[in-house]
Amino acid sequence: MIDEKRLFHAHTQIRPFIHRTPVLTSASVDHLAKNTTFFKCENLQRTGSFKFRGACNAVAGCAAQIRDHGVITHSSGNHAQALALAAKLHDIPAFVVMPQTSALVKREAAEGYGATVILCRPTYTSRKETVARLQQESGAMFISSSDNEDIIAGQGTAAIELIDEVGSLDLILTPVGGGGLLAGTALAASHLLPHIKVIGCEPEQVDDAYRSFNSGTRIEEVHGHTIAEGLMTPLGVHTFDIIRKFVYDIVLVTEREILQAMRYIWERMKIIIEPSSAVAVAPLLNRCLKITGKRVGVILSGGNVDLDRFFAILST
Amino acid sequence: MIDEKRLFHAHTQIRPFIHRTPVLTSASVDHLAKNTTFFKCENLQRTGSFKFRGACNAVAGCAAQIRDHGVITHSSGNHAQALALAAKLHDIPAFVVMPQTSALVKREAAEGYGATVILCRPTYTSRKETVARLQQESGAMFISSSDNEDIIAGQGTAAIELIDEVGSLDLILTPVGGGGLLAGTALAASHLLPHIKVIGCEPEQVDDAYRSFNSGTRIEEVHGHTIAEGLMTPLGVHTFDIIRKFVYDIVLVTEREILQAMRYIWERMKIIIEPSSAVAVAPLLNRCLKITGKRVGVILSGGNVDLDRFFAILST
Repeated sequence: MIDEKRLFHAHTQIRPFIHRTPVLTSASVDHLAKNTTFFKCENLQRTGSFKFRGACNAVAGCAAQIRDHGVITHSSGNHAQALALAAKLHDIPAFVVMPQTSALVKREAAEGYGATVILCRPTYTSRKETVARLQQESGAMFISSSDNEDIIAGQGTAAIELIDEVGSLDLILTPVGGGGLLAGTALAASHLLPHIKVIGCEPEQVDDAYRSFNSGTRIEEVHGHTIAEGLMTPLGVHTFDIIRKFVYDIVLVTEREILQAMRYIWERMKIIIEPSSAVAVAPLLNRCLKITGKRVGVILSGGNVDLDRFFAILST
Repeated sequence: MIDEKRLFHAHTQIRPFIHRTPVLTSASVDHLAKNTTFFKCENLQRTGSFKFRGACNAVAGCAAQIRDHGVITHSSGNHAQALALAAKLHDIPAFVVMPQTSALVKREAAEGYGATVILCRPTYTSRKETVARLQQESGAMFISSSDNEDIIAGQGTAAIELIDEVGSLDLILTPVGGGGLLAGTALAASHLLPHIKVIGCEPEQVDDAYRSFNSGTRIEEVHGHTIAEGLMTPLGVHTFDIIRKFVYDIVLVTEREILQAMRYIWERMKIIIEPSSAVAVAPLLNRCLKITGKRVGVILSGGNVDLDRFFAILST
């Protein structure tokens, strides 16, 4: 189980490697959302997302035993870059399995941080088989992008810093995909502020966490597509267990609301957030939470966007 | 004369109103520029630029005597918004004269902060006449966008915070237009770190500060056009005097280098900077300063861009 000792240990362990990201506020957002919101800017984290916290903690925790064999994961997104850099900083090899359909820019990003990228067929089965084969060949340790206790503890450290900086909060909002950030945040926040409500935010188009949370049964597959690509992952066994116990609610937002929130933050706050981050902003801007005058924390999860693609989308 | 006492007084005076903006670093920039760079993010300042510091200081300094009559300026850019918000926070009327050709979005921005916008013909003469007439009618005090000691002292506070946070620096780079930021930075930095070199960065297309600095004679008019529109202003009498004494050098960058630097910072640092800010980044990325292994501060002056316009420009 992940207790507070483990959370604080994670923070101590990763602190030399991570950025202590700034907490920003915006009078425009506060005026529109009718609450006081504190944005923890993990889009300004190394590798451009909170994933670096978990990856760093997972690698640091097992660095001695895997020094020669390294770590392996399958991801074409932020976890790939995060694990690549975390491994590099600990002088450990990293292998990343990506579908051969992944954008070249994503391959290059992971390779830029020193990882060996291995391409597989674009199916979940091929991903898993390729990882299993490489694990056997190399002896590398598999590091899941979210369903791993060290990863969850690492992701929780953003909330520790946020609360340390701004003090008491009534709510914290995070996006939810695999659930690592939501679970880690819920554990850390409810330890530090027992009355806080931690809320997961999910695209309506891929509402598996919402349905799992409300039915009590974990949905193991994601269907549908969302612009918040980082969230097209089902909850894991560990993350679901924590989310059921520590999360107050999960709310849904539409694709249009995600894009509107993303553009609003770019324009008003002068920071670049990716669609997954905007998922946790939209419920404030559309006021679906029906709260007023509260102190709200939002974890802005990442800022990795293909600018050309979003220039086209946002200008329409 | 602006001594250190006045600089620190400015900081004390504006601190309750401004954001203490974060200082960010980037491994990508450091790798490319071969120096360690600390970015003071005034793009994340209230109203989206450092101009709020000076405006706040100017308004606070004379709030009692102008309570009824208010302040007036001519600007279609960041100073207009900054003065409007500073006046609003001090409960003082603000009048902003803008050429009738100004984009509606700029008018609305100043009005959004509570200013009364008065349109004039798009000539410098009309601007000045309109301001003079309104001053006589209203009794409002004229606050220049840069050539005013309180403004200069206010702009210097960004460097005070930067040095307070990161300690010793070898250089600080700022963009230069009217010279308020450069002069204020040079005064503050050379007081705190006597051996520091403060360097002004200017678009090649509007090189009046460069030529004034090198010839010793202030050029009073700006010709040419640059994408860094905020810098199309000549140095003032006060700012030129300070810049001659306290600035180490002024360097020029091309339009292409400005756009490249702007895009690089958006992509790698996940923050939105306007072209004027990129002017102070370009000399590091193109390595025209020929320095290696130094500790460099950069004041990122602002983040106010028309996203649609830049989507079009940056995606070409």
